[in-house]
Amino acid sequence: MQAVFGNPGSNELSFLTGLPEDIPYYLVLQEGAAIAIADGFAQASGTVGFLNLHAASGTGNSMGCMTNTVDCHTPMVVMAGQQARRYVPVGAMLTNVDPVKLGDPLVKWSGEPLRPQDGPALVSKGLMLADSAPRGVVYLSVPLDDWTQPAEEDALDLLLEREMIGTPVLPQKAVDSLVSALDRASAPALVLGPGSDTEEGFQAAVALAERARLPVWVAPSPPRSPFPTRHRCYQGQLPSSAGAVADVLARYDTVICFGAPVFRYHAPSDDPFLRPGVRVHAVTDDPDEAARAPFGRIAVGDPSDALARVAAAVADSGRDWPPARTLPETDTSGPHFTTEAILDAIDRGTSEDTVFALEWTSADLVRDRLTISRPKSLFYCAAGGLGWGLPAAIGLRLGCPDRPVVALIGDGAMQYTPSALWTAMRHQVAVTFVVCTNTKYRALQEFSEVLHVPEGPYLDISGLDVLDIARGYGVETHRAESLDDLTDYLRQQETATGPRLVEILQR
Amino acid sequence: MQAVFGNPGSNELSFLTGLPEDIPYYLVLQEGAAIAIADGFAQASGTVGFLNLHAASGTGNSMGCMTNTVDCHTPMVVMAGQQARRYVPVGAMLTNVDPVKLGDPLVKWSGEPLRPQDGPALVSKGLMLADSAPRGVVYLSVPLDDWTQPAEEDALDLLLEREMIGTPVLPQKAVDSLVSALDRASAPALVLGPGSDTEEGFQAAVALAERARLPVWVAPSPPRSPFPTRHRCYQGQLPSSAGAVADVLARYDTVICFGAPVFRYHAPSDDPFLRPGVRVHAVTDDPDEAARAPFGRIAVGDPSDALARVAAAVADSGRDWPPARTLPETDTSGPHFTTEAILDAIDRGTSEDTVFALEWTSADLVRDRLTISRPKSLFYCAAGGLGWGLPAAIGLRLGCPDRPVVALIGDGAMQYTPSALWTAMRHQVAVTFVVCTNTKYRALQEFSEVLHVPEGPYLDISGLDVLDIARGYGVETHRAESLDDLTDYLRQQETATGPRLVEILQR
Amino acid sequence: MQAVFGNPGSNELSFLTGLPEDIPYYLVLQEGAAIAIADGFAQASGTVGFLNLHAASGTGNSMGCMTNTVDCHTPMVVMAGQQARRYVPVGAMLTNVDPVKLGDPLVKWSGEPLRPQDGPALVSKGLMLADSAPRGVVYLSVPLDDWTQPAEEDALDLLLEREMIGTPVLPQKAVDSLVSALDRASAPALVLGPGSDTEEGFQAAVALAERARLPVWVAPSPPRSPFPTRHRCYQGQLPSSAGAVADVLARYDTVICFGAPVFRYHAPSDDPFLRPGVRVHAVTDDPDEAARAPFGRIAVGDPSDALARVAAAVADSGRDWPPARTLPETDTSGPHFTTEAILDAIDRGTSEDTVFALEWTSADLVRDRLTISRPKSLFYCAAGGLGWGLPAAIGLRLGCPDRPVVALIGDGAMQYTPSALWTAMRHQVAVTFVVCTNTKYRALQEFSEVLHVPEGPYLDISGLDVLDIARGYGVETHRAESLDDLTDYLRQQETATGPRLVEILQR
Amino acid sequence: MQAVFGNPGSNELSFLTGLPEDIPYYLVLQEGAAIAIADGFAQASGTVGFLNLHAASGTGNSMGCMTNTVDCHTPMVVMAGQQARRYVPVGAMLTNVDPVKLGDPLVKWSGEPLRPQDGPALVSKGLMLADSAPRGVVYLSVPLDDWTQPAEEDALDLLLEREMIGTPVLPQKAVDSLVSALDRASAPALVLGPGSDTEEGFQAAVALAERARLPVWVAPSPPRSPFPTRHRCYQGQLPSSAGAVADVLARYDTVICFGAPVFRYHAPSDDPFLRPGVRVHAVTDDPDEAARAPFGRIAVGDPSDALARVAAAVADSGRDWPPARTLPETDTSGPHFTTEAILDAIDRGTSEDTVFALEWTSADLVRDRLTISRPKSLFYCAAGGLGWGLPAAIGLRLGCPDRPVVALIGDGAMQYTPSALWTAMRHQVAVTFVVCTNTKYRALQEFSEVLHVPEGPYLDISGLDVLDIARGYGVETHRAESLDDLTDYLRQQETATGPRLVEILQR
Repeated sequence: MQAVFGNPGSNELSFLTGLPEDIPYYLVLQEGAAIAIADGFAQASGTVGFLNLHAASGTGNSMGCMTNTVDCHTPMVVMAGQQARRYVPVGAMLTNVDPVKLGDPLVKWSGEPLRPQDGPALVSKGLMLADSAPRGVVYLSVPLDDWTQPAEEDALDLLLEREMIGTPVLPQKAVDSLVSALDRASAPALVLGPGSDTEEGFQAAVALAERARLPVWVAPSPPRSPFPTRHRCYQGQLPSSAGAVADVLARYDTVICFGAPVFRYHAPSDDPFLRPGVRVHAVTDDPDEAARAPFGRIAVGDPSDALARVAAAVADSGRDWPPARTLPETDTSGPHFTTEAILDAIDRGTSEDTVFALEWTSADLVRDRLTISRPKSLFYCAAGGLGWGLPAAIGLRLGCPDRPVVALIGDGAMQYTPSALWTAMRHQVAVTFVVCTNTKYRALQEFSEVLHVPEGPYLDISGLDVLDIARGYGVETHRAESLDDLTDYLRQQETATGPRLVEILQR
Repeated sequence: MQAVFGNPGSNELSFLTGLPEDIPYYLVLQEGAAIAIADGFAQASGTVGFLNLHAASGTGNSMGCMTNTVDCHTPMVVMAGQQARRYVPVGAMLTNVDPVKLGDPLVKWSGEPLRPQDGPALVSKGLMLADSAPRGVVYLSVPLDDWTQPAEEDALDLLLEREMIGTPVLPQKAVDSLVSALDRASAPALVLGPGSDTEEGFQAAVALAERARLPVWVAPSPPRSPFPTRHRCYQGQLPSSAGAVADVLARYDTVICFGAPVFRYHAPSDDPFLRPGVRVHAVTDDPDEAARAPFGRIAVGDPSDALARVAAAVADSGRDWPPARTLPETDTSGPHFTTEAILDAIDRGTSEDTVFALEWTSADLVRDRLTISRPKSLFYCAAGGLGWGLPAAIGLRLGCPDRPVVALIGDGAMQYTPSALWTAMRHQVAVTFVVCTNTKYRALQEFSEVLHVPEGPYLDISGLDVLDIARGYGVETHRAESLDDLTDYLRQQETATGPRLVEILQR
Repeated sequence: MQAVFGNPGSNELSFLTGLPEDIPYYLVLQEGAAIAIADGFAQASGTVGFLNLHAASGTGNSMGCMTNTVDCHTPMVVMAGQQARRYVPVGAMLTNVDPVKLGDPLVKWSGEPLRPQDGPALVSKGLMLADSAPRGVVYLSVPLDDWTQPAEEDALDLLLEREMIGTPVLPQKAVDSLVSALDRASAPALVLGPGSDTEEGFQAAVALAERARLPVWVAPSPPRSPFPTRHRCYQGQLPSSAGAVADVLARYDTVICFGAPVFRYHAPSDDPFLRPGVRVHAVTDDPDEAARAPFGRIAVGDPSDALARVAAAVADSGRDWPPARTLPETDTSGPHFTTEAILDAIDRGTSEDTVFALEWTSADLVRDRLTISRPKSLFYCAAGGLGWGLPAAIGLRLGCPDRPVVALIGDGAMQYTPSALWTAMRHQVAVTFVVCTNTKYRALQEFSEVLHVPEGPYLDISGLDVLDIARGYGVETHRAESLDDLTDYLRQQETATGPRLVEILQR
Repeated sequence: MQAVFGNPGSNELSFLTGLPEDIPYYLVLQEGAAIAIADGFAQASGTVGFLNLHAASGTGNSMGCMTNTVDCHTPMVVMAGQQARRYVPVGAMLTNVDPVKLGDPLVKWSGEPLRPQDGPALVSKGLMLADSAPRGVVYLSVPLDDWTQPAEEDALDLLLEREMIGTPVLPQKAVDSLVSALDRASAPALVLGPGSDTEEGFQAAVALAERARLPVWVAPSPPRSPFPTRHRCYQGQLPSSAGAVADVLARYDTVICFGAPVFRYHAPSDDPFLRPGVRVHAVTDDPDEAARAPFGRIAVGDPSDALARVAAAVADSGRDWPPARTLPETDTSGPHFTTEAILDAIDRGTSEDTVFALEWTSADLVRDRLTISRPKSLFYCAAGGLGWGLPAAIGLRLGCPDRPVVALIGDGAMQYTPSALWTAMRHQVAVTFVVCTNTKYRALQEFSEVLHVPEGPYLDISGLDVLDIARGYGVETHRAESLDDLTDYLRQQETATGPRLVEILQR
């Protein structure tokens, strides 16, 4: 825990006035934005996010974006202020009624201390539990009058010496079994999920793919980008309907998936989950993911560790390299541009160090058109809960200040948490927000075709001026009139010292 | 149920495409805003609010503002789309995991149908339960593929004929006991809460106060204004700390409270709840409010009905009228104006028909400076959860289109749900938003004095341009440079055909 | 609260050592038995039951029988000892982890005090909430070290003066509407449920039936007997499948139900819930019962009060008396006797003062063969959860010591809570237990016919010697060899000073 | 899953009639007994226990004994029958209302299928999740009409091929760190908990203790006996109060604990948890155990695997053997015998193959007086929830039919679940039950001394005749008049073919 993000109220004042100097507090004007900033920070920095919110009302505001934090397995402690202990049974204003129920079923664990002096143990447990596999959100409620009570010195000393190693790994026989399956396969493939997008996992995936000459797919509905998108083994992203996934995997006899549920479908389908003759193995650190999969041989343990051990043990393969991909040309005319053209322009304007936050209609295309070559370079809202991407970008930059951060945001997605921009302005967080204005919920429009339902007026969000809004929060703005204009604007990011927002019209 | 408010996603498309013509759908760009608009609509129109949200992510975004809906006892059905039934056990993207737990502990009841054909019964139960005492929020989860399944005709016919009378009243002996207590009291007083702010209750309270010559107080932390603020019996609003309430009530021997918890304290206090010699009686339709009160003789039943029956039976009193109040003069100089001066300017610019939505530092002063003479004229976020006032104003106007609606919003409060303005623009909802810019969380600043903690940087929210933000959502804007300018702008509301936002600088 | 029932452990010692002299403590050897004894006591005495259990383990043991308490709307406070406050976060042995979740979804409310001095307010709230409509179970967890902490004198004084009237009634217009429906009906009928089995309700039901010449039915799956079984208006008990109920009610145009869900079906059926042309009205004090009914016009309020007000206002009817019933003769030969013959023998051996507790295969027949002429004379496990009847009989006797109590128990039903007999022995509670031995789960056997599934070995419970078991608990025992023997044994109850158990063989 | 244990009702009939021939169904007459038998079976056989209960009432009855299953980390699936799908929204008799909440907070996961055809996936997920670390209870609710619906063949085939390896292990660096801590310690000690009582763990613990000459303690409040009680390294069982544990551990500088919480205290204490200078390391497969420990360096992973890896890597130690223990002599006179004398007599009458189930006042002494030399030889109720030991013994014998099973049960403990004896009789399960009659709750009496509270009448349970009760269930009985008599009776167990119960009087 290296920073506190939050939006305060009366219950939290005592906590905030006692914060140590070396832990910065980032004020955020809305709680959904706050958890997303904290989430981005935690994912980028590899630490546990720490959020301080106001009673049930503040917690509630965070619970939409929290679904993304949960599904992304970001370690996060959300602490809310409770009313004074004497006032809770009376139900005074700002009482957090039954806080241990409030986070259900999203949080891993929630707690409220029975004694004021148990606050430190509560926070310590929360941090450790959030950061142990499977990582997730812990919710704490602390009465406002607890912070002025003395701690128990003995107990505190013991707490401060605690350590927890919460990331167990596969038993050796499970690793052996995966190696053997790969070595014996005639047409194996690799599927990668967010759980393998670590320094160790990303490198191991490349090593494994090259050694065994494996075609590599990204698991459906991915919140990360766990493999280099220009690598010759890269085959793209698996589709999101059960039948379409089965179609793709029918090319292989053995599929091994690291760090993803098997699988994260989205588009409804009545087709079988898998074709006969395909064996799927998987590694995840989440027992629920393993137990709910409709098929597969799944071992529970750290996926990146497993990738590294499998990569080290697998036999060199004499196989041909997987088939190369060619991406379709796209129309580059304006003034409303295609998604592909916009992405190409962005790709030209960014470098391999760039970190992308994404909340956009066309998430599917992104990995095809952008050059990703480092781990932890692309972040998407894992639960599909909108409002996360814009603030998450701010947190990503705070968490990895050495890498440029670009956020690709839809004009609709921006409206869930626009006031996050204020925090970027206040702390001069150098993120470039690219807002693609298409004046509709286009992802939804595409989905209505899948579901064969007629479109309705609920798709039309015209009438927004995103530049005005950004200016209202003190952010530098620009309208990109051409693709080159967009590319140029992105290239200037290197010298930017604060948040900037550029709008481009999308078809 | 007369309208559907919502923010859709893929799970909700089938529901939305089947909506009947005579039930309008209001698109809102963020779910906290959506529930607050639906809340305002329900409170103003006296119907059950109906909200359609997207899975857990959308539901989550609404759960902050939902705390206000809960504490205000607004009847509300929140329905979220669930993934397709086949995909739920697999944990597909947008699965609402264990939805019957998600609303805990805020909602009265939550349900998900075990069979597709049970959807109508679920909605019917939800509407009835939400609207029975104590009113509140019901949460429903409906799989996306249910809407295309046929209903059971027999069952549907029976459902449509159902009726429920869910507002029981006091037994006669409880009414008699209240009348007798009043008749025998030497120094009685009346305390009114939001539960008595109905057409019937408001009138009965005036009749009772006049007949028995009762001093009338508004219960602490009030979300409504249940008594005419210029009436000669009106004494103001009770303070919010236990000791201060006890001080005020020490003037009386008998206090009767209708339609409020006993009491909704806020500011911490270690003083006794009540002084010896004071007897408190109360009527509420919420058993939990009755059971958790630290003192009192409390009967459960409809407060407005009880007020009317007590008013009809109480003896005429020969007592003197309660003492008259005089309000302090205030400094009217600018360019940063006092709260009192701003309120006086607003009072001059509005009429007795005006409905106020309020989310502002200085809620305490409002009833002193504004002229309230009709029921259902003032609405405040009952749980203190910010972000509710701005969108609630939009719902209030939609729910009572014959009355002008003015929203008094702080510059900080506006930042939780600014995109609600878009819905006002889209549907040309004629609300006038008055934003008082003081560039800080002033309520919090005042509270830090109460708690004797030093102020911190978390109070400073300077750097916002609220007019730019409003323009971004297509709203007409104005900066009031003087108090008269503000008054004039408000007077023009009569001819306004859409949303307008005026900013004034507050000290 | 007049008595404490319980089974203690270390967490509860401090509470038990401080009990006042005038509140007796009844030790029970198992917690399911304990809650059932407390339930019987509360129902018979009209007070709130109070149960003291041991942490989560003890609470858990009570949660089966608790389902009956819940469904019967018996007011009950279940208080469990929590570990010492310091040990709870460590998860020490006997920690009650998250006790506010443990009772879900059975209990109305659960609480644990944030401060030791809040224990009295917690218990006070619990008692009041349990006893307010709709009555039910409240769960409290109190740390073991709280009982030695001083209370706040001021707060305690205020608490002790509290009162709550928690049984609101129908608005007058709802009563008028029922009267009008009855007066205009051509073929009306009355259906009565457990909510009307009070002194007031029972008498009012007789008055109403006689005045309007109404056929009277008992609602399906009844836990009480709310009407005299030998009254000429009495028509019997409605069947428990949806279609069969619809068949019976098709004889009427207007049906009014007091104090029952509409309806408590049991046997599955795909037939429509109601035939066209039948209008059902109902009164219940449980909003959930009202909102979940598949049909009907249902008002929420106290059913007995409503019965009395309707009975007083309804017009005298010139209608004929409802058709008389004749009960079939039965075979009286042994040594294995028919249910009817056993019931007839019991009826001869008991008086109109007798209170029956019932947990037996043939619950349906009981009201036909036994003479019930007073309110609160028959009690059955409302949720069908076995193990309740035997101990409930003990509580019934403790709660109404002036009336003889007879328990009719199956040999299978006895095995869930046999050690309850020890408490009857220890306190010399004069109940006569009639155990009908048929060596099988006969209700289940009958149900397997309804479901068209073959019988299995899970029905056979032969090999029990119930007299040995009873002797093990110090109870006087007898084997009835003939029906007259059974009748005689029951007649001797008047002079019994302790528990007795008689076995008879049932076909 | 090799057997089904249960107590059926109407909702479960369809499931039970379709059971395959090779999965035996064991009928139990009460649900607390049923889960304990299933628990014993699962622990002894190393499989997942499978329990079939009746709706909420049956589930409720099991929830007391379930606390032991939970705290012992026994893998267990509890499946309850739900009413027919059509009847659930109506709240028909035997509806399991909100079953996914009923098991909170005891169960790991609970589920109910949204479609009838999802039953197989539900059961499959349940079995896997129950059996993955940390093992525990899963709760399933299945509507009665689902069992007659056809499964999806494709999906079923995929399900049946699924596998899950749910027991991850320590990362190698964590093992290295433990080895290094041991190697560098000057006064190390080993503490063992139930998680190391496996074939692998038990042997590895002996090897480690011998190689490093470690004093070995059993962790406080132990449900198992993870080390040979006659081994020269064995030091006994740690006390259960925080201060007393600190006192014992003060002899060491480095303590490593495998497979237990740190620590499972019971007797309240205000003393510090640990003395300065003692470093505690631990291995557990339960992240919550790790995160809630008040001190220590704790790694999450399989404890037995960790023991084996540490034992293989640790350096041979030149240390002296730990100090030898001598047990005090005891008075052997009757007719009421000391606990020690009874245990010695039992020890003489049993062999090293004997498996003990224990539920008795004097759990602390057992490991001192009994000779345990094999893994999985002693089982105690992990949560201290009484009623578990007697039925667990039956399950233990069914789960390991090659080993003799002796249950040591108090006369009070027997009264929670006596009807479990019937199942032993019905299936001729050869367990010898030793009931020690002391006519009081002696553990509680001892605790009242610890808490300095006076004794009360709630301790006195005299008046039971346990032999009568056992005879009532068809069990062979015997009263041991002397210690030799008891020893002899136990020695005859080898030839017993069914259950036997022997009573001896305890002081």
